Amino acid sequence: MDRDDMADKVGLPPGTVVHTGIDRTEEVTISIMEFADGQMREYVADCIDDCSPPPSLNITKWVHVCGVHDVDIVSKVCEFYGLHPLVIEDIPSVGQRPKLEIMPKSVYIVLRSYDITEDADRFHSEQVSIAFGENFVLSFQESPVDIFGRIRERARTQDSRIKTEGPDYIVYTILDLLIDKYFVVLERMGDLIEDLEDDLIEQVSSDILTRIYRVKRSLLAFRRHIWPLREVVFKMQRDTQQFVDQNMQVFLRDLYDHVIRVTDHVETFRESITGMLDIYLSSVSNKMNNVMKVLTVISTIFIPLTLMASIYGMNWHWIPEIEILGAAGYPIFLLAMLTVTTCLVIYFRRINWI
Amino acid sequence: MDRDDMADKVGLPPGTVVHTGIDRTEEVTISIMEFADGQMREYVADCIDDCSPPPSLNITKWVHVCGVHDVDIVSKVCEFYGLHPLVIEDIPSVGQRPKLEIMPKSVYIVLRSYDITEDADRFHSEQVSIAFGENFVLSFQESPVDIFGRIRERARTQDSRIKTEGPDYIVYTILDLLIDKYFVVLERMGDLIEDLEDDLIEQVSSDILTRIYRVKRSLLAFRRHIWPLREVVFKMQRDTQQFVDQNMQVFLRDLYDHVIRVTDHVETFRESITGMLDIYLSSVSNKMNNVMKVLTVISTIFIPLTLMASIYGMNWHWIPEIEILGAAGYPIFLLAMLTVTTCLVIYFRRINWI
Amino acid sequence: MDRDDMADKVGLPPGTVVHTGIDRTEEVTISIMEFADGQMREYVADCIDDCSPPPSLNITKWVHVCGVHDVDIVSKVCEFYGLHPLVIEDIPSVGQRPKLEIMPKSVYIVLRSYDITEDADRFHSEQVSIAFGENFVLSFQESPVDIFGRIRERARTQDSRIKTEGPDYIVYTILDLLIDKYFVVLERMGDLIEDLEDDLIEQVSSDILTRIYRVKRSLLAFRRHIWPLREVVFKMQRDTQQFVDQNMQVFLRDLYDHVIRVTDHVETFRESITGMLDIYLSSVSNKMNNVMKVLTVISTIFIPLTLMASIYGMNWHWIPEIEILGAAGYPIFLLAMLTVTTCLVIYFRRINWI
Amino acid sequence: MDRDDMADKVGLPPGTVVHTGIDRTEEVTISIMEFADGQMREYVADCIDDCSPPPSLNITKWVHVCGVHDVDIVSKVCEFYGLHPLVIEDIPSVGQRPKLEIMPKSVYIVLRSYDITEDADRFHSEQVSIAFGENFVLSFQESPVDIFGRIRERARTQDSRIKTEGPDYIVYTILDLLIDKYFVVLERMGDLIEDLEDDLIEQVSSDILTRIYRVKRSLLAFRRHIWPLREVVFKMQRDTQQFVDQNMQVFLRDLYDHVIRVTDHVETFRESITGMLDIYLSSVSNKMNNVMKVLTVISTIFIPLTLMASIYGMNWHWIPEIEILGAAGYPIFLLAMLTVTTCLVIYFRRINWI
Amino acid sequence: MDRDDMADKVGLPPGTVVHTGIDRTEEVTISIMEFADGQMREYVADCIDDCSPPPSLNITKWVHVCGVHDVDIVSKVCEFYGLHPLVIEDIPSVGQRPKLEIMPKSVYIVLRSYDITEDADRFHSEQVSIAFGENFVLSFQESPVDIFGRIRERARTQDSRIKTEGPDYIVYTILDLLIDKYFVVLERMGDLIEDLEDDLIEQVSSDILTRIYRVKRSLLAFRRHIWPLREVVFKMQRDTQQFVDQNMQVFLRDLYDHVIRVTDHVETFRESITGMLDIYLSSVSNKMNNVMKVLTVISTIFIPLTLMASIYGMNWHWIPEIEILGAAGYPIFLLAMLTVTTCLVIYFRRINWI
Repeated sequence: MDRDDMADKVGLPPGTVVHTGIDRTEEVTISIMEFADGQMREYVADCIDDCSPPPSLNITKWVHVCGVHDVDIVSKVCEFYGLHPLVIEDIPSVGQRPKLEIMPKSVYIVLRSYDITEDADRFHSEQVSIAFGENFVLSFQESPVDIFGRIRERARTQDSRIKTEGPDYIVYTILDLLIDKYFVVLERMGDLIEDLEDDLIEQVSSDILTRIYRVKRSLLAFRRHIWPLREVVFKMQRDTQQFVDQNMQVFLRDLYDHVIRVTDHVETFRESITGMLDIYLSSVSNKMNNVMKVLTVISTIFIPLTLMASIYGMNWHWIPEIEILGAAGYPIFLLAMLTVTTCLVIYFRRINWI
Repeated sequence: MDRDDMADKVGLPPGTVVHTGIDRTEEVTISIMEFADGQMREYVADCIDDCSPPPSLNITKWVHVCGVHDVDIVSKVCEFYGLHPLVIEDIPSVGQRPKLEIMPKSVYIVLRSYDITEDADRFHSEQVSIAFGENFVLSFQESPVDIFGRIRERARTQDSRIKTEGPDYIVYTILDLLIDKYFVVLERMGDLIEDLEDDLIEQVSSDILTRIYRVKRSLLAFRRHIWPLREVVFKMQRDTQQFVDQNMQVFLRDLYDHVIRVTDHVETFRESITGMLDIYLSSVSNKMNNVMKVLTVISTIFIPLTLMASIYGMNWHWIPEIEILGAAGYPIFLLAMLTVTTCLVIYFRRINWI
Repeated sequence: MDRDDMADKVGLPPGTVVHTGIDRTEEVTISIMEFADGQMREYVADCIDDCSPPPSLNITKWVHVCGVHDVDIVSKVCEFYGLHPLVIEDIPSVGQRPKLEIMPKSVYIVLRSYDITEDADRFHSEQVSIAFGENFVLSFQESPVDIFGRIRERARTQDSRIKTEGPDYIVYTILDLLIDKYFVVLERMGDLIEDLEDDLIEQVSSDILTRIYRVKRSLLAFRRHIWPLREVVFKMQRDTQQFVDQNMQVFLRDLYDHVIRVTDHVETFRESITGMLDIYLSSVSNKMNNVMKVLTVISTIFIPLTLMASIYGMNWHWIPEIEILGAAGYPIFLLAMLTVTTCLVIYFRRINWI
Repeated sequence: MDRDDMADKVGLPPGTVVHTGIDRTEEVTISIMEFADGQMREYVADCIDDCSPPPSLNITKWVHVCGVHDVDIVSKVCEFYGLHPLVIEDIPSVGQRPKLEIMPKSVYIVLRSYDITEDADRFHSEQVSIAFGENFVLSFQESPVDIFGRIRERARTQDSRIKTEGPDYIVYTILDLLIDKYFVVLERMGDLIEDLEDDLIEQVSSDILTRIYRVKRSLLAFRRHIWPLREVVFKMQRDTQQFVDQNMQVFLRDLYDHVIRVTDHVETFRESITGMLDIYLSSVSNKMNNVMKVLTVISTIFIPLTLMASIYGMNWHWIPEIEILGAAGYPIFLLAMLTVTTCLVIYFRRINWI
Repeated sequence: MDRDDMADKVGLPPGTVVHTGIDRTEEVTISIMEFADGQMREYVADCIDDCSPPPSLNITKWVHVCGVHDVDIVSKVCEFYGLHPLVIEDIPSVGQRPKLEIMPKSVYIVLRSYDITEDADRFHSEQVSIAFGENFVLSFQESPVDIFGRIRERARTQDSRIKTEGPDYIVYTILDLLIDKYFVVLERMGDLIEDLEDDLIEQVSSDILTRIYRVKRSLLAFRRHIWPLREVVFKMQRDTQQFVDQNMQVFLRDLYDHVIRVTDHVETFRESITGMLDIYLSSVSNKMNNVMKVLTVISTIFIPLTLMASIYGMNWHWIPEIEILGAAGYPIFLLAMLTVTTCLVIYFRRINWI
């Protein structure tokens, strides 16, 4: 799921639009919102022409496409807004590295949305593409379940800022939502790591090792998608004056700050996991040490005793102890065994082995 | 305590003021100091209007709010001074990354205060927010116990510089105090690490492993809060000419120097801890080696002896040693055992195993 | 194959053209394509003069040389287009670091082409050199099998963009193909690593260790060739305005993006492999622990029992248990043995050793 | 000794002069040298006024203070030359990070002097502060034994350059001496590391581990003081044109070069020590392996033999071997034992265990 | 050999010329080549005056000094050409870090020459100093065997470029030769590493560990001398326009490229060696695991059998098996032993221990 399917595209001419990733058969749904003079109109596109650019610069149109596996629809929507062929190629080609591309009349952003799934320590992630210009926002997601439902809901309320601000603010709220969701993922990862820590200190089972490894892998994948975001948000702050209002700067700085916090946490988690592996290794060694001690103590106590017993089982003609001690021999022998055992036990106590 | 609660805020519109972190019920207290013409007036705010901006530019007002869980109070105080909604959102949202935000009429700084607690190797830390402008300083802390008591005390003395210098100097003394407290934390950590080192060299117990791990975690958390401070102080030095007097530069450079020293120490501690883990692993291996040696020595000496004893316990019709040696057999056998034992002991001495 | 043969060249004057790498005897074939006014002429060079520069600036000529072991041919082709002696020296000297060299009338690029071979976890790679100017593209490869066959095929189709665009577009398609092939290599490496992960979790065999090591080596070699490509593509974007059309910029940015994605994956793979080594080490320790436990359990149970049996095999004149218990002695003894065994088994169960 | 005592200073107003570090009771001695027109006057200060600035710009005065525990003296000397309160605070506050502070009329440098002590693998280090202006040099050291004796001696010779050059040259010779002494420390560390390497390869004792750890700690402490020096010398080269003559540049470059060499060596030493820890761990494992082999060989040979002997000690009514072989039984049994032993020994030889 | 002898120089005035490094007694030989109008004159200097600057700017003079232990000669030769005292100090002070120093009338370069010695995995290296100006090149080496023989030979041929180009070209050929020799060293190191890899996979001997460590040390030393070369060549490219002809730029870029390639290989080798240490550690653990398995298998099989034999060696009055089974007892007992053994062997087969 995480691998690139770019391999299929070797040798195709640049700009060839191909869907990569898991096959999907769901129908593509396109939700449209139009904002003008503080009013909002919302409808689902019936035909592809519903996605055409708004007639005037005063109207801001947000076209949200759920499903990128139908490359025809993606191509047509993008062509309405004059996106570059290479950008159109990128949208259905999931597995992109987060990036921001500035074109003459629009800005293209690609990044990943993360969600936690119910039952497991795996995360669901999909590619989200955003393109915006002076009076439009296009957004694309892979799965049919609307990721931006909460933004849409907020837009429906009376005094929502989304209605009055332009496309730049819509893009900001989208990015803000996506980055806020990273914190949810972080929180879940933190829980997983804390559980691992507790299990680690309590007892060692080989299961822990695979769990550590699995968390580490999720973290590495997450990190690969988060790191380039720093640059994306930074570029958005610095290079998009043409499309982003000056008073959005403080919001973008806040966004940038959040991304840095996410990466900070990811790095701390990485170090924690590395530390846990060391601890695990140490505690396995430690446990083995204890096992060895038990073996050594048992051997050191019982092997000499066995020798003693073997000695008096020999068939020599004349064993003085047996002859001289007579009936007292066996009790004396038991006493001797007891003495040896006691001495060894005391010794091992002293050197802290038992 | 260290985790972000940002997860709760997914999907809320930006600028929504929400308190995150542990729930608190203590009442919020607001201490106010006003400085004018070298005079100082100090009082506790009765109503929120006491926090309003000073009437003239000659008066410097320092409003210190203990408790950020009442978001209403925080919002109102901040709105008096025209802070940006995103800044107002950050103040009660604990778990911020240290940062400095420059706004048209004020500068906002957020960082963490650290304290050592009495009984344990854990540290108490809380978020401190500072906003200052031409004639005011706002400061916010989480807990009800005044962190800046010592500064306040000093301000009460006759010839304190705080009275005559402006808000920039107050902010400097606050930062100086907070950073000085980091050194206390460092010292405590150094003690913990030194104790660990001593314990490590003396003897190995599995307890050490968890202690090492716990110190490492504290250190990583501390480090995550210290590293961004470099940039905060550097930015304060470079970008805040509007609010900071030129002759404060040397003080800020000194501050910067202290922050670097803290990070230097943190890095050295990290390397020490990594080194300790290696040492621990090595010494566990070493100990196991010794255990193994004991086992091997005992086995190598006693197993052959047991074999010898077993041989002369067999029931063969004619065992020449027994028949021929007669009564001398047993003593000669004991002598043989002694010889074998002595040889092995000498051998093991020579190869340094006992 | 991966080693430099530069050692042979110590002390030769600079500019001496020498073929390094494995010896080849295949004949060198030179395929030529000429593009003019949307038309295309394709032929195989009979004599070296067929490679001479096109007569006018309107004609774009692409000369592709398969085989660099005949240094004479390489020299002559290059001299037609006035390449610098040091560049001519680099082309047949395989083992170059990817680089881009800008000369007054042409640009020289050297990089490696990667292919997966059928049967093994090794990769085939060879050096590809590209030189291009205002109306020509020279390309050189080591092996006789045409790497750029797919580009050539595409050029033969009716409306191929290659026919109308200039040399810069041809170079871009070449680079695009080569970088796309890196993704194929990445995918194969990803498969190898995933297989290793599965094998690692299921069971430990010493074979895994050598496989991990081999994948790591391939990865390191691959990485050494990929990293400098970042700079090559970046330089091509920034410094070659003289030869590259302005509207190629977006294509080059896309290329750069792909190279970064390749390096991202390589770094993630590296971390995965490091992680696997840790896991391997941990699981070997773990397994040993289990072996030790078996040994200890067996020894702890049977050695005391053997002692008990040995005791009643001794020849003391009067062993009370034997005398007093009479015929019941042996059953009671067996019962005692059973009791001891049961207790130990229960104990070991409780501490989770069996 | 290495820890900061900054903790004591929490909450004190900035600029408060406090001596930190070990308590000292020695009297402070102040040696003064005055250079004018190639002449030199040298005396020990009787009263603090002897340290006052030279009357004219033609006279260069070097005031060297041995002992910074008397903060009064330090303060007064510094105030003569108008140093900034924060600088005066730094001088007796040992544990500073090396830094260079440029003030309107002087430059302040703080760094550490290192010396090897006779008997141990520890190093003596103390803080050295230097302040210089147009016609004066102030230098401060912690201990009473003059560190700069050799410079002073050289200054007394007839044609010493120190007499004619200005304060910048004096500072250069001081820095040069201190950095030269770092090489002595490096050489000693190199010897310690080489000894460790020899001991490591010859035999493993747990003592080595603590020695490695101790050298590592010294190295880390040394490194913490050396790294910032790069920046100090670089800043001196770049930013102090006001106080440093143009023809001193080449000397400063040389100094910078030396500092880099020191850091290079320190990094190499660090890598060596890390390597040694790996080697140690490997060789402990290796040794354990050998111990285990001995145990296994002994067990594998003697346990079966013991079983054989036990078998013929049983009391079955009819053991055919004993009955049939008669007097030949025992010798045949011994032969069988010998055969088994020989086979096992040969086997273990072949698999290289003995 | 690798250590700095700077320690001896502590406290000497800067510019004092002292020879460090191993003592040499060979006589110093000075070879001189003069180039003018495409003609070449070659002679060995009889007296020091033969080294004086050429009389006119048209004559290029290359003075090559074999042996720097006679500091008088070095000083005099350098003074002819007006080199700075600090440079003259550096030439006989071996152990310099590679650097390039630009002076008003000349450029000074110091670096190391590397050679492989016949019999061992050690490398011979010595310091080479080069100074050049408008019409002269001075070069110094430590050992008496001429390193630049091959360049000299080439200069003697009819149409050598050396005769006609200026000092910059001579310096380039010298640097080119030295860097080409690094590749020879790399090749040898690669061979050593490959041998180690083969030995590692085939079998583990403690000898490998010391070999790995020795290669690592050589590599670290080599790396310390190679890394600064990047900067040296880069500086030569960028800052020496006064002395280096414009058309030398492409040669210098080529040189820079070679240096980067060397450092690339060194880094890859380092990672390989680190990997090998991990593999070694893993395979030692693995081997121990196998040894443990043998021990456990042997113990688990034979200890219970011995117990069984011991049981029937006891002297109880009535052991039912013995009494009831009569003569069939012993064979039945043997059968029981066989059954137990077979079961255990099957079990161990199944869990893959034998």
